[in-house]
Amino acid sequence: MEVWPKRIMDIWFTEKQSPNMKLSLRIKNILLNKTTEFQDILVVETEEYGKIMVLDGAIQITEKDEFCYHEMMAHIPICAHSHPRRVLIIGGGDGGVLRECLKHPFIEEAILVDIDSEVVQASRDYFPHVSSGMNDPRATILNMDALTFIREHKHEFDIVIVDSTDPVDFAAGLFQSPFYTDVFEALRSEGIMIAQTESPFAEASLLKQAYKEMEKVFPIVSLCWGAMPTYPTGFWTYTVGSKTVTPEEPRNPAPLDCKYYTSRIHSNSFVLPPFLEALIELK
Amino acid sequence: MEVWPKRIMDIWFTEKQSPNMKLSLRIKNILLNKTTEFQDILVVETEEYGKIMVLDGAIQITEKDEFCYHEMMAHIPICAHSHPRRVLIIGGGDGGVLRECLKHPFIEEAILVDIDSEVVQASRDYFPHVSSGMNDPRATILNMDALTFIREHKHEFDIVIVDSTDPVDFAAGLFQSPFYTDVFEALRSEGIMIAQTESPFAEASLLKQAYKEMEKVFPIVSLCWGAMPTYPTGFWTYTVGSKTVTPEEPRNPAPLDCKYYTSRIHSNSFVLPPFLEALIELK
Repeated sequence: MEVWPKRIMDIWFTEKQSPNMKLSLRIKNILLNKTTEFQDILVVETEEYGKIMVLDGAIQITEKDEFCYHEMMAHIPICAHSHPRRVLIIGGGDGGVLRECLKHPFIEEAILVDIDSEVVQASRDYFPHVSSGMNDPRATILNMDALTFIREHKHEFDIVIVDSTDPVDFAAGLFQSPFYTDVFEALRSEGIMIAQTESPFAEASLLKQAYKEMEKVFPIVSLCWGAMPTYPTGFWTYTVGSKTVTPEEPRNPAPLDCKYYTSRIHSNSFVLPPFLEALIELK
Repeated sequence: MEVWPKRIMDIWFTEKQSPNMKLSLRIKNILLNKTTEFQDILVVETEEYGKIMVLDGAIQITEKDEFCYHEMMAHIPICAHSHPRRVLIIGGGDGGVLRECLKHPFIEEAILVDIDSEVVQASRDYFPHVSSGMNDPRATILNMDALTFIREHKHEFDIVIVDSTDPVDFAAGLFQSPFYTDVFEALRSEGIMIAQTESPFAEASLLKQAYKEMEKVFPIVSLCWGAMPTYPTGFWTYTVGSKTVTPEEPRNPAPLDCKYYTSRIHSNSFVLPPFLEALIELK
């Protein structure tokens, strides 16, 4: 006879990853649930992935797998560049990308522009291991519209990292060529940008759009991919736009304490399965 | 005023990927729902992934992403071997691995041993593009216990592919060294085996166990990984056991019509992120 498992806490957070697909995680506790000027922020403690931060219903970071995404976003462009000094991070208010950028001793300044100061505060409050880079003297955190910020800064950055939420509402412009033009102009002569460009299984058309729009602006555009368990389908892409250098081979060493990124993972991530190559019509 | 979306069919299949994590897919139709002598078989049509086959509640194949898994399971060992002729597939009753094996013209015979004839029939009925290899004259389908079969066949196969369900019930023995010893003995002198060994995020201990157990038997053991969206976390591992040859570099060309596997993906898949290398204590 089965015994009813009275002691299991049966409370679930569910993300609608698409209209037809949901991921549900059993939770232990709700740590933060508020509506800011820009979005809903939820921080919950899950059994499977530790603490997670959710913006407008979409998982942004989890304690267990955030390294996969943040290491790729930071080290791919920084290691591809021959002498990066100044980095601009658009979005990424949790600070995970910032933390990774500042692992490189040669990075002199990293400016993070996230529209929502409450995301930054939530990360400081609940994710100290993610937000740790915010206290680095080389870091500056600005809470304003990145589209405005970037138009006012020309030829100032070696690296621009677009760590956006999904391209809806205030983030919609971040997947379009006028924005990529602004990024291009904000970059110095050997500048490199990277943007997260969704999953080819769940959001094939968005990925293709971002890639094509970036091709209108940057002479060199290249797609790479990696695993990211808590993002839809776990298969994530990153699109790199570059002014002069090819990004496929790293020029700088990987930080020693990475858990996902290595120099070999760097080059390998640009080798695409044929279905993905076909999607962006590389051949 | 919001209009109630009357026309959306709100019926969901949910997989409990772990006690603390669930994946739900909206379905259009239930095509098959039966209990065989060995397990429950469910075939449903989903909006996100097309038709899917579920055994004992766990997704085995979907029309949209089955190629990721089947291509890796077949082409990694076959392309690593210098002159493979005879292949044994344990489990894999859907026929996806079989289909991939038979893409190589030099494969003379492929024997598939799946305990459940009803899985084979369900694949023939609902997944003609997956089961297509079953009609190849080089294919033999046997419905019996693979543990019995393999003990009666010594030095007969160049390749053994263990396409098992999760290691519970009748499949539990498939992650343990006595079984790997039987596989070793069923292999010819340059023989190579591969087994699916779960996700390092969802089933780290199972992966580690399979790896360690295989190391007790095979002189060369090597882990590779790939994307597989509908398996838990989307990050999947495959463990290769080899008698004499290193499996990291392909010796045979990839079939032309692959969507995931290429010769470069082959070698790259053996390059592990540091967290995974640490898990199996390679260093």
